[in-house]
Amino acid sequence: MKKNVLIIGAGGVAKVVAHKCAQHNDELGRIAIASRNLSKCQAIIDSVTAKGSLKQPAEIRAYALDALDIEATKALIRETDSQIVINVGSAFLNMSVLRACMETGAAYLDTAIHEDPSRICETPPWYGNYEWKHLDECRERGITAILGIGFDPGVVNAWAALANKQYFDRIDSIDILDVNAGSHGKYFATNFDPEINFREFTGTVWSWQNRQWTPNSMFEVKRTDDLPVVGAQNLYLTGHDEVHSLSKNLDVPNIRFWMSFGDHYINVFSVLKNLGLLSEQPVKTAEGQEVVPLKVVKAVLPDPASLAPGYTGKTCIADLVKGSKNGQPREVLIYNVADHEEAFAETDSQGISYTAGVPPVAAARLIARGDWDARQMVNVEELPPEPFLTLLDQMGLPTRVKDEHGDRPWNA
Amino acid sequence: MKKNVLIIGAGGVAKVVAHKCAQHNDELGRIAIASRNLSKCQAIIDSVTAKGSLKQPAEIRAYALDALDIEATKALIRETDSQIVINVGSAFLNMSVLRACMETGAAYLDTAIHEDPSRICETPPWYGNYEWKHLDECRERGITAILGIGFDPGVVNAWAALANKQYFDRIDSIDILDVNAGSHGKYFATNFDPEINFREFTGTVWSWQNRQWTPNSMFEVKRTDDLPVVGAQNLYLTGHDEVHSLSKNLDVPNIRFWMSFGDHYINVFSVLKNLGLLSEQPVKTAEGQEVVPLKVVKAVLPDPASLAPGYTGKTCIADLVKGSKNGQPREVLIYNVADHEEAFAETDSQGISYTAGVPPVAAARLIARGDWDARQMVNVEELPPEPFLTLLDQMGLPTRVKDEHGDRPWNA
Repeated sequence: MKKNVLIIGAGGVAKVVAHKCAQHNDELGRIAIASRNLSKCQAIIDSVTAKGSLKQPAEIRAYALDALDIEATKALIRETDSQIVINVGSAFLNMSVLRACMETGAAYLDTAIHEDPSRICETPPWYGNYEWKHLDECRERGITAILGIGFDPGVVNAWAALANKQYFDRIDSIDILDVNAGSHGKYFATNFDPEINFREFTGTVWSWQNRQWTPNSMFEVKRTDDLPVVGAQNLYLTGHDEVHSLSKNLDVPNIRFWMSFGDHYINVFSVLKNLGLLSEQPVKTAEGQEVVPLKVVKAVLPDPASLAPGYTGKTCIADLVKGSKNGQPREVLIYNVADHEEAFAETDSQGISYTAGVPPVAAARLIARGDWDARQMVNVEELPPEPFLTLLDQMGLPTRVKDEHGDRPWNA
Repeated sequence: MKKNVLIIGAGGVAKVVAHKCAQHNDELGRIAIASRNLSKCQAIIDSVTAKGSLKQPAEIRAYALDALDIEATKALIRETDSQIVINVGSAFLNMSVLRACMETGAAYLDTAIHEDPSRICETPPWYGNYEWKHLDECRERGITAILGIGFDPGVVNAWAALANKQYFDRIDSIDILDVNAGSHGKYFATNFDPEINFREFTGTVWSWQNRQWTPNSMFEVKRTDDLPVVGAQNLYLTGHDEVHSLSKNLDVPNIRFWMSFGDHYINVFSVLKNLGLLSEQPVKTAEGQEVVPLKVVKAVLPDPASLAPGYTGKTCIADLVKGSKNGQPREVLIYNVADHEEAFAETDSQGISYTAGVPPVAAARLIARGDWDARQMVNVEELPPEPFLTLLDQMGLPTRVKDEHGDRPWNA
């Protein structure tokens, strides 16, 4: 049984995490928020207060922290007596926050794979380059570390585990379909940190096909799917965290990640990429200033958090699983539809932040209860999916299933 | 009679100027090249030597100079005993180089209007904000200052003067048409300094229509013309230097500048502009670094000089003049066609640099001869066009005329 949550990060996802922790602070205990920018932490606390999200009266405290500083992070974990750390800061912080957790005994959760600022789209399996090097140490120390517990990765991994356990004897393929059919009304914006967003797409796209790592380039492979609620969508083969763990943990020959893009997004992305403006490597201006182009692109784009008030429309994220059960071929779509306006009404956040921020709080509740206190480093598909999906049904992200028997709640 | 030329700048246009000065050094005397970057000056001298461009044996000397430093510029004019200064450096340098010329008695030539780094597309007439404030002082001191003596502005102004003097009793409209139908083979590049190129298009497009300054935005007004050699082309109403002086110096109610753009250029430009990446105002990155986005765009784009070796195709620049002569309406197209590969063969430069770099050398020859030694500040249309166009015929930029009598050399 673990208590008291330290949230690291103060972006859009951190805001949802704070709201959701507040809604369950009877179970989770005290809540603290830390980031480099204290005023962003305080703004989140103000939003939680204004919405009346706290279930039990409590004070959420804000702390200024550079989470690359392991000693400072350890000190804050101890000062706040936090037994659960939800790392929703930059993907560059994972290794230092994990180290601080390992040395203080706190449970560690994150929502995205570790990144080295100077490298993009690393060789598969990407987790092997960073996180999994600490598997043994976590096991020896009894540290609970749940990697990639957002929506994708996260919920989609739990769906894969559910399909493997309940719906199939043999799985031939898992295609993860990520559609944002919402509209933010801006000329162009990314739904989360532009730096992380673009880094996903500028290098090689790795997928797991015929039990082999297969390289493609972005926007090279396209599919069109007619999905629940959002209708027909163009999706493109993309590299993504969960492919790197599912390919290790499940006996499935084909695992691919697909993301929806409109023609306008692709055009803007292609122009920026072809010009070299998405490079993470510095260039030198005529005046001799060293600048990373991608950081300048980030500086001119809208802050993803600023998109929330006017965002309309829905997201649909799904696992399309094909294989066989009892000797019969079958196909199951496991999915969730979320609404940008409903997310804003509840948490002052847009739907992409909402879908990423609710799952780690569900996981934290399961750790607090002991159900998911694994005392080792795990990816989500290694944990029992049922209690997690049941909590998400109650917390705003219900899972539905569509197969030959119809379209219904997963546990109907 | 003036002698000895100091070239300020070491970009693509400066290279052509150096080659052409060398070809006529019997008339022009000693040649010196100065810029912030000494190695770029030396590379130009190496090119002149390799091509054997010097008509008479001579040594071209290179100097490191920050031409914003008026005292240093004056000292170099005196040290080199230069009586003619051809300023083909950045458009930000005009006022300081002009000042140095006024105080040393040297003749001053430039090819583009002065720009303040912090302002774009200034209020018309733009020359009134900078250059023309020195009209009286130039006249009092007897300083020859020829403004905008490249191709456009420059040759197109001389054509306007020719039309006004020889071809029309009354001119209703002058439409300057600037077409580059060449291909550099890169994904995207500008043909001269990207910073100056983009600054032309990001603010208000000013044209002179019905004797009034008329504002439009870039790519708002389009026309299609079937032009000699290059064929049908889409051109867009653009703000440009010569509209600011021709509207003052000629009694013409409509003066417009049009530039050809392909759909790909417009798309890349529009993406960059809409994102804010063409801004000359600094932004701050998440890390706190202050950066001017336009300077970063410049840093990632190809150096215009690097385009020369593979450049193919032709340019066509024209004045389309409408009005009447002897009571009859008439229409005359005065134009030049230049070839990128021929420009490279002669001067190691692409055609855009060539068309801009040859005219100031023709003008320098006319100053050296005394024909254009005006001893005051003038725009090109204020000078007799015939000797200038005659020299250009001999120097690689022949003028042709197309009207109801056919298509022929202007002085056939």
